[in-house]
Amino acid sequence: MNKDQYKNRIEQCTKLMHEADVDVLLLAKPANMFFLTGDGRLCAFAMITKEGEIALGVPQTDIEDVSQAAHFDHITGFDDEVGMIHGIAHYFKKFGILKGSVGLEYTFLTQSMMTMLTHPHGKPEGVVPKDCTHIMSSLRLVKDDEEIERIRHAANVAEKGMAAAVKSVKTGMTESQVAAEAEYAMRQAGADEFWRTYVCSGPRTNIAHGLPTQRRIERGDLVMIDIHPIVNGYSADMCRTVCEGNAGPEQIKAYDLYVKAQQATIEMIRSGISMTDLEQTFHGMLKNAGHEEHIFGPPIHGVGIEFEEAPLPAGHAFFHGEKAPEPLRAGTVIAVGNCGLYTGPWGVRVEDTVAVTEHGHMILTEYPRHLLM
Amino acid sequence: MNKDQYKNRIEQCTKLMHEADVDVLLLAKPANMFFLTGDGRLCAFAMITKEGEIALGVPQTDIEDVSQAAHFDHITGFDDEVGMIHGIAHYFKKFGILKGSVGLEYTFLTQSMMTMLTHPHGKPEGVVPKDCTHIMSSLRLVKDDEEIERIRHAANVAEKGMAAAVKSVKTGMTESQVAAEAEYAMRQAGADEFWRTYVCSGPRTNIAHGLPTQRRIERGDLVMIDIHPIVNGYSADMCRTVCEGNAGPEQIKAYDLYVKAQQATIEMIRSGISMTDLEQTFHGMLKNAGHEEHIFGPPIHGVGIEFEEAPLPAGHAFFHGEKAPEPLRAGTVIAVGNCGLYTGPWGVRVEDTVAVTEHGHMILTEYPRHLLM
Repeated sequence: MNKDQYKNRIEQCTKLMHEADVDVLLLAKPANMFFLTGDGRLCAFAMITKEGEIALGVPQTDIEDVSQAAHFDHITGFDDEVGMIHGIAHYFKKFGILKGSVGLEYTFLTQSMMTMLTHPHGKPEGVVPKDCTHIMSSLRLVKDDEEIERIRHAANVAEKGMAAAVKSVKTGMTESQVAAEAEYAMRQAGADEFWRTYVCSGPRTNIAHGLPTQRRIERGDLVMIDIHPIVNGYSADMCRTVCEGNAGPEQIKAYDLYVKAQQATIEMIRSGISMTDLEQTFHGMLKNAGHEEHIFGPPIHGVGIEFEEAPLPAGHAFFHGEKAPEPLRAGTVIAVGNCGLYTGPWGVRVEDTVAVTEHGHMILTEYPRHLLM
Repeated sequence: MNKDQYKNRIEQCTKLMHEADVDVLLLAKPANMFFLTGDGRLCAFAMITKEGEIALGVPQTDIEDVSQAAHFDHITGFDDEVGMIHGIAHYFKKFGILKGSVGLEYTFLTQSMMTMLTHPHGKPEGVVPKDCTHIMSSLRLVKDDEEIERIRHAANVAEKGMAAAVKSVKTGMTESQVAAEAEYAMRQAGADEFWRTYVCSGPRTNIAHGLPTQRRIERGDLVMIDIHPIVNGYSADMCRTVCEGNAGPEQIKAYDLYVKAQQATIEMIRSGISMTDLEQTFHGMLKNAGHEEHIFGPPIHGVGIEFEEAPLPAGHAFFHGEKAPEPLRAGTVIAVGNCGLYTGPWGVRVEDTVAVTEHGHMILTEYPRHLLM
């Protein structure tokens, strides 16, 4: 990303701030700071004025490192929480902001973090907090070509992680050991980090968020593997279900149905389609086959700097502080297959990262979809 | 953990609820639910009444799995956020709670999660939210023998991870590849998961939270490795700094000083000592050697189900929604060495997990402290 790209992002940001009547943003979420400045880290903050001035507060120790990575106008270091609050006060004063509103990340800040960032020694009394989640989500919603290339790179790393994990699956392996293979391969392939790896097996494939345990895979088990590497600051999201040995006819039938519904949903993706249409197609095909009671979770969500971000389906968005999504625009990247088919004794799930284009879509995670290895 | 242990925890919990005048807890933090019921997972809630009745709400898909792991009186499944809110409403009605107060985790809940859990279709209008952080922290503060054995087990797994990481350090390795070795070894040794691994090298050892990157280690670099496995639900926290090649005299001097300050602090640990005394000893020795400007972060924090939990040093605690800690009691487990010595061009840090005993302490992470490999 070059200087002009960041300048352009800040311009778009200030435009949305004017529309939302927010005088200054006070960001603490690494993903948002990374998007606007090129550096995002915990225990730091960024303030952006309506005029596009950028001020950072970081640990004293990190000033040099942040200065090399980030685009900004002012930077200050602090030693502890008191110093952080004084840094915030300093910038409010510098910018001459005594009233109006400050945009805070309501979907990221805990109650206690909120209390710290709005501490009376930092924020002027006349400045009222407002949620700025939708400003940041709107800015990050449509990816430019370079962002899509980064997500594609992350998708390639995910494919290598999945190949290593699937290859390792055998009777006697623990779920955690399968996760280890995926993670190790992703780091070897260039991942800086990864979001939590999900691996579950046998009856545990029926649970909604199957984190790895010491359960040992048995002959005939389904194994569900969901991985999310971070490469160059961008993520991909991919899930596969495989069977150790011979799957039963019911399992094959459910798996084939799931992939058919997922692929039919992907097939519909193009600029202008609504998330609701996609959701209804996906869920509809599962329901029509008699699985109304076996669905959990929204089938689609956005992918970008975070592996799960806006756009979220309307119902889900409402409860997670996001606005209901507009029809998808070219450049939006989504994961399709976030819901599972949970039959009771076992479940199946297949998920891919897909970029919306003007006249169609590009599937970025191309690892084969085969239940039998 | 057996049934009586959970019964005892709930009894202690209801006692604290009476003292804090909280009528019902509505928990969503996995660590807290795990402590009180034996199962903690995202996208779930637990309600605990002052009479000690336990009600769980979990994804419909997870009922069987949770029922096997958890101790509870009532369970309900939901399909989505609306179902979750209806589940909360159902239990408020069942318990006959129409007024009074509900304890929520202010240090865990984001603004948007808080809005969901206190939605008017769930929480009765007359019930006022209160922060229950200190109730849960008090309950979890002093570990019983079985908990300490679990943390010791996690510490053993951390030692294996550290050994693999240190062995792998050589010119040309990326920081991420070193992290991969630690994580892989920890999963092989029985970790279900781990908290974020920190690996940084060369000039990046000077930053406060050095997450791994693609930076390649150069001859003469310091490498800082901080790992936190989760085994059987409990964590350990260990950091080591090593040098690839020959360290300079200033590096050796700073490292020796840091270990000396850390070990002198650990030497003081016994039942009745205050966190402030420990902090002053640790920071004092670094300051007296001329490093007043080179310290960042509180030197000590608690370890248990989370790798970073109460007790926190008084100043830090205040800003993170925790109460200032009382003198340490036998059974508390802390990590010593959370602050680093950041000289500018590089930093050093060594951290160990230590259990407080009646007349002294036990160091649980025994991996050697040597700068030179």
